[in-house]
Amino acid sequence: MTAATKVGFIGLGAMGRGAVGNLLAKGFEVVGCDVRPDALDWLREKGGTPAGSLAEMAAQVRIVVCFVVNAQQTEAVLFGKGGLVGNLPAGAVFIACSTMDPGYVRTLEGRLAAHSISLVDAPVTGGAVGAERGTLTIMGSGTPEAFELARPVLEVFGAKVHYLGPAGSGAQMKVLNQLLCGVHLAAAGEALALAKRQGLPLDLTLEILGSGAAGSWMLADRGPRMIAGEFDKVTSAVDIFVKDMSLVLDATRESRFPAALAHAAYLAFLGTTARGLGTQDDAAVTTNYDIARSAA
Amino acid sequence: MTAATKVGFIGLGAMGRGAVGNLLAKGFEVVGCDVRPDALDWLREKGGTPAGSLAEMAAQVRIVVCFVVNAQQTEAVLFGKGGLVGNLPAGAVFIACSTMDPGYVRTLEGRLAAHSISLVDAPVTGGAVGAERGTLTIMGSGTPEAFELARPVLEVFGAKVHYLGPAGSGAQMKVLNQLLCGVHLAAAGEALALAKRQGLPLDLTLEILGSGAAGSWMLADRGPRMIAGEFDKVTSAVDIFVKDMSLVLDATRESRFPAALAHAAYLAFLGTTARGLGTQDDAAVTTNYDIARSAA
Repeated sequence: MTAATKVGFIGLGAMGRGAVGNLLAKGFEVVGCDVRPDALDWLREKGGTPAGSLAEMAAQVRIVVCFVVNAQQTEAVLFGKGGLVGNLPAGAVFIACSTMDPGYVRTLEGRLAAHSISLVDAPVTGGAVGAERGTLTIMGSGTPEAFELARPVLEVFGAKVHYLGPAGSGAQMKVLNQLLCGVHLAAAGEALALAKRQGLPLDLTLEILGSGAAGSWMLADRGPRMIAGEFDKVTSAVDIFVKDMSLVLDATRESRFPAALAHAAYLAFLGTTARGLGTQDDAAVTTNYDIARSAA
Repeated sequence: MTAATKVGFIGLGAMGRGAVGNLLAKGFEVVGCDVRPDALDWLREKGGTPAGSLAEMAAQVRIVVCFVVNAQQTEAVLFGKGGLVGNLPAGAVFIACSTMDPGYVRTLEGRLAAHSISLVDAPVTGGAVGAERGTLTIMGSGTPEAFELARPVLEVFGAKVHYLGPAGSGAQMKVLNQLLCGVHLAAAGEALALAKRQGLPLDLTLEILGSGAAGSWMLADRGPRMIAGEFDKVTSAVDIFVKDMSLVLDATRESRFPAALAHAAYLAFLGTTARGLGTQDDAAVTTNYDIARSAA
């Protein structure tokens, strides 16, 4: 594979745009699809090629990277009306970067194989920041052959590209990853809301908590947004964590594993969505404790 | 204050030893007290002076740093039989670095002032590692005058020395800090135990989780100990977190703040202690999910 390889790309949200930016910068041609017209405008401006439809994209590429939100969207992209299956050439590789149920992923591999399409299950972690900087950690899985075809693409936006085994093991690792992400994010919300309730200076609180043993990636990344209270500017929505933590809860049930912290965090996200903030930025989980949204 | 200043030091555990090492390296004379004879041997080897009693130490110094475990030990050191109060000279400064109830700290300031002793409430974060490297974050409080007397000493083992206001505000910040530390530590235990239950390779799991959005200081510091299952080598005991999370729960009750994650973490530590592991290293919280202690 050369740098001039043409890559199909589906899902131009914050994460997807970061990955696409790196692909373009490294000389890949990117043919992109997204249901949002403004996302296609963005792609054109960056030097990529918006496709009029999934079928139009599928006819041009042998490798597709998919950064949609969940399994439902992945299913639609592949098997929905005018989807990739039936339009991608035999031998194509579909790289699924979304966070999905490991059981669904395992089934998907066989369903795609029936159409001579290889699945690479490759969820990522590192946030929109990591996607933009090309420093994502990638939890890759699938057949070794398919993974090696995907690797040159994954290494463009992933600083650490791991191969974990059969399709589904990437998804399994991602679920574990989301357990910690969700707990750390909800905990940051809990700590900063308590600081506010107690009248502590919030910027200094964030600086202190972030500099020692209380530090986490989530606190550093979402803490400033929690303090600013700017939840309309959405990097990743509360609903995404309701979905991800649901996958965590499914995994713990399946493993007969009473993960109390994961459940507490799940309820914090679900409670935030219940108050009508599901489409807001996930930093809004801190409003779960009834602090005024507007107060900085 | 010059580098040759003599400093009293009480509590030569892992954190205390780190701080003392830095004081000695910077040319301070350290007169130390600890109930453990091996701690005094350690101090002598390092070039410090073990004191035969608190009174003997108090007669030689005007500034005392106290790294004992809790408020009960602090109370004993100050007001117990043969304690510092009555033996320290007028104008002395007592720097309390332990994690204590903010209400107790506020009262303590007045009780010490009655004996012409100034209290500097200065809890720290950054772990034994930070103490050894001199990179602790210090949450200082007390009168501005007392704090300025303490500052040259605090800056020897603290990379970030903050002044937060009246005595008790340091303790208040530390309680918030422990909320996150406790949640992150218990969450690391939860995630790694689930990984083990699911048969994932633990070293690689730790590497992946630690490299992206799931990362935390606690995961990086305690994760390896959790995987090794070496809980006999105690850096900080489970019981310390039972105590610290109790202070967090007290604060949330006082603020009428339903911190669900903090409570879930507290139960994980309490459950670990209930199974007889209270004096083991706090990484043992991962055994809460019944994984075999010995398995690596």
